[in-house]
Amino acid sequence: MVKANANYGRLQGNYLFSTIAKKVAAYTEAHPDAGIIRLGIGDVTQPLSPAVISALHSAVDDMADAKTFHGYAPDLGYEFLRSAIAEQDYRARGCEISDDEIFISDGAKSDSANIQEIFSPDAKVAVCDPVYPVYVDSNVMAGRSGEWIESEQRYSDFIYMPCTEANHFMPEFPKENPDLIYLCFPNNPTGMTITKERLQEWVDYANRIHAVILYDAAYEAYISEPDVPHSIYECEGARTCAIEIRSFSKNAGFTGVRLGFTVVPKDLKADGVALHGLWARRHGTKYNGAPYIIQKAGAAVYTPEGQKEIRQLVGYYMENARMIYEGLKDAGYTVYGGVNAPYIWLKTPDGMSSWDFFDHLLDSKHIVGTPGSGFGPHGEGFFRLTAFGTHENTREAIKRITEA
Amino acid sequence: MVKANANYGRLQGNYLFSTIAKKVAAYTEAHPDAGIIRLGIGDVTQPLSPAVISALHSAVDDMADAKTFHGYAPDLGYEFLRSAIAEQDYRARGCEISDDEIFISDGAKSDSANIQEIFSPDAKVAVCDPVYPVYVDSNVMAGRSGEWIESEQRYSDFIYMPCTEANHFMPEFPKENPDLIYLCFPNNPTGMTITKERLQEWVDYANRIHAVILYDAAYEAYISEPDVPHSIYECEGARTCAIEIRSFSKNAGFTGVRLGFTVVPKDLKADGVALHGLWARRHGTKYNGAPYIIQKAGAAVYTPEGQKEIRQLVGYYMENARMIYEGLKDAGYTVYGGVNAPYIWLKTPDGMSSWDFFDHLLDSKHIVGTPGSGFGPHGEGFFRLTAFGTHENTREAIKRITEA
Repeated sequence: MVKANANYGRLQGNYLFSTIAKKVAAYTEAHPDAGIIRLGIGDVTQPLSPAVISALHSAVDDMADAKTFHGYAPDLGYEFLRSAIAEQDYRARGCEISDDEIFISDGAKSDSANIQEIFSPDAKVAVCDPVYPVYVDSNVMAGRSGEWIESEQRYSDFIYMPCTEANHFMPEFPKENPDLIYLCFPNNPTGMTITKERLQEWVDYANRIHAVILYDAAYEAYISEPDVPHSIYECEGARTCAIEIRSFSKNAGFTGVRLGFTVVPKDLKADGVALHGLWARRHGTKYNGAPYIIQKAGAAVYTPEGQKEIRQLVGYYMENARMIYEGLKDAGYTVYGGVNAPYIWLKTPDGMSSWDFFDHLLDSKHIVGTPGSGFGPHGEGFFRLTAFGTHENTREAIKRITEA
Repeated sequence: MVKANANYGRLQGNYLFSTIAKKVAAYTEAHPDAGIIRLGIGDVTQPLSPAVISALHSAVDDMADAKTFHGYAPDLGYEFLRSAIAEQDYRARGCEISDDEIFISDGAKSDSANIQEIFSPDAKVAVCDPVYPVYVDSNVMAGRSGEWIESEQRYSDFIYMPCTEANHFMPEFPKENPDLIYLCFPNNPTGMTITKERLQEWVDYANRIHAVILYDAAYEAYISEPDVPHSIYECEGARTCAIEIRSFSKNAGFTGVRLGFTVVPKDLKADGVALHGLWARRHGTKYNGAPYIIQKAGAAVYTPEGQKEIRQLVGYYMENARMIYEGLKDAGYTVYGGVNAPYIWLKTPDGMSSWDFFDHLLDSKHIVGTPGSGFGPHGEGFFRLTAFGTHENTREAIKRITEA
C-alpha cells in the first residue's frame, strides 16, 4: 500500500506567503473597493530595465531561426552568464571563484530549498529565529525536524539561533554543534546585516567544527554601507565551509522572470566528499537548465548599461525603504533594517501580537504586511514591511499607518 | 561533522546524457572537421513556431511597463494556462480533470524527478527496463534503491519490469507488489506504445493493490494511430491511482524554453492522504512558478494557430522518424518504435554491445546515438536514435549508417 511522505505531515499550516495571499484574497473579495496596498510578500513592482527587455527580445528572435535556435541549455548554465557572474560578482571583489563554481538556476528559492538534499538525512540544522521559512520547511520535508512542539512553536531537532533586539539581531554560536548553518545577510526578515569581522568569525567557527554555512545573499545589491560583506567569500577560509546563494529577483526585478545561482567551491568537502560534484549531479539529474532567453536577460544585467539600470532600480526601492523607516520612526515606532536591505522590521505597537497587527493593518488601514511570528517564535511582536511598492503606494501606506 | 547524502554515492557514473555529451565533446575536439550528426539526446532543432514567438515578444513587452508587469507567478501556474490545458488536453478528450488539478512547472524532467518526494521514503518502486534514467536516479538519491548489484547491473530494492522483444516491449505486472509504478507511453526509449485496453488493466491493477502510477506522457503529441490512449485519464478509475506528467519540449520545441505540467487528481490518496495537497505544498515551498513570459508562450500553443503550427512541427519530426525506421529496416536492421513516437529503437548488428555500437557510430560514421544499455540492463544490445534532427542531417545519417 502506497504511503505519503509522513514528514509533510509535520509542516505547520501552509507556506507563510500562501496563507497571506489567501487572507488578502478573501478580504479583497469582501471589500473590493478597499484600495489595498501590498507591502507583504517581497514582490517587486517596477518593470524590467531597458537593457534586460532588449536582451529578451533579441533572445526570442534567436529562438525563431533554426540557425540561432537554442535547445537544452547546459545543465549548469551557459558559459556567457557563469563567467560574467564569476568575474563581476566575485573576482572583481577579490573573491577567488572560478566560472565553473557557479551553478545557474531558476531562483534562490529553489536553490535554498534544494541544497539540503546533498547532505546526510540526519544532518543537524541551525537556523536563525526569525528566518525565511523555506530553510525550515525544506528540512522538515526531508525529515530533519523531529517533532513540532506546539507550546514552544518550534521543532525538536532544529537548532534555533534567536535574533532579538537584545543581541542586535545577530545570531550567536549555538551551544550544540550544527552540521548545516543557514545564514542570510542582508537579512530577511529583519533587514539587518553583519560586519565582515563577525562573518569571519562564523567562517572560522564552521571550519573548526566541520559544518557548512549556507549563505543566502539574495539582498546583496541593497548594501549601502562600507564594512558590510557582499559575499561570504570575502572571508578567509570560506571556500572550505560555505555555499552562497544569489538571486536576480531583487536587484534586477526578476521575481516573475526566475533566475538565480549558487556557488559551490571545489574545495568544499563534507567528510571527504566534494559537494561540487554532488550539486552538479543533482542539477544534471533533476533539472534541465534555466531557459536560454532568461539566461540572456541575466547576462544583460552584467553589461555596463544593465549595471547602471539596476542601480537605479535598487535606488528606487531604497528610497521607499527610507520613507518607511523614517516615517515610522518619526511616528514613534521602533524600527530596524531598511538601510542595507529592502525590509523594515518594526515592533508592533502596544504589545500586539504579529497576526493581530496584520489583521489590524488589513482591516483598518488596508495594508498588507508580513507577521513576524510567521518567520519563527522570536519574530512574535514584530512585523515586516517591504520596500518593493511604488513611491506613491509606499507614501500612502505610511500616511495611513501613522495617522490616528 | 557534516556528511554528504550517502545515497548519491550509490549512483552509477554520471547522468547518461552528461556522459554522452562529454564523450562527444572530446571526440569533436580531437576531430573538429568530423561533421558529427547528433541523434542522441532528444533535443529539438527546429525554431519555435510563429504563434509562440509572437506571444513571447508580447509578454516581454508586458514586462517593460509597470501597468502590465508581472512579478511572482501563482505557485501552481497562471489560470490562463491551467484552464487551456485542462480544457483542451483533458476535458475535450472526455477526461474529467479540473483546472486546479493542473500544476505548471519548468518541465517534465524536474517533475518526474521531484514527484517521488511526496511519497514515503520506503516506497517500493517499479520501473520498466529499459527506462528513462531520471526515474531511477531520483529514487536512488532519495534512498529507495538499496545496493547496486554490479553483476546484474541493477539495484537490489527496485522492481525492474523487463521490456523485451519477447513481450513486445510491454511491461508485465511484477510478482512483488510495488507502491510506485513509473510508466511512460509513448515510451522513451523504445518508441513503443500501449493500447487503451492494456493501460486499463494497469489502472485496475494499481487500484487493486493501492499503488500509484506515475504516467509520463511527454510524447503524447506523436501518437498517430487510433486506440493509443493520449492520457491515462481516458481509463476508468485513473483518478484514484494516477499522476500524469506532460511536457512542452517535444510537441512545441520547448527544450530550451522549459515548460511542463503535472496532473494530480483531487481523488488520489495514499493511505488516506490527498496527494494534491502535498504536491501543492511542495510547489509552494520549493518552487516559485514558471516565468510569466514562458507561460504566455505555453498558452499560445493552445490557440488555433498554435495548434496548427505544432502539428506541423510534430509532422516534420515524424517524417524523420519514418526515414530512420524505413532506411534501417530496408538495410536489414531490426527496428522498433518510430510510428507513435520520435524514437527509433534498433537492435545492434552482429550482437555488438550498445556502447561498442555507440563508439562505432561515433568513430566511423560520426553519428551520435544513445546506447540502449544506458537505459537499463535489458536495453543492452539495443540503441536509440531520435527523430529531432533536420531532414538533411537525418537523411545523411541514415545514408552513412546503411552504406558499407
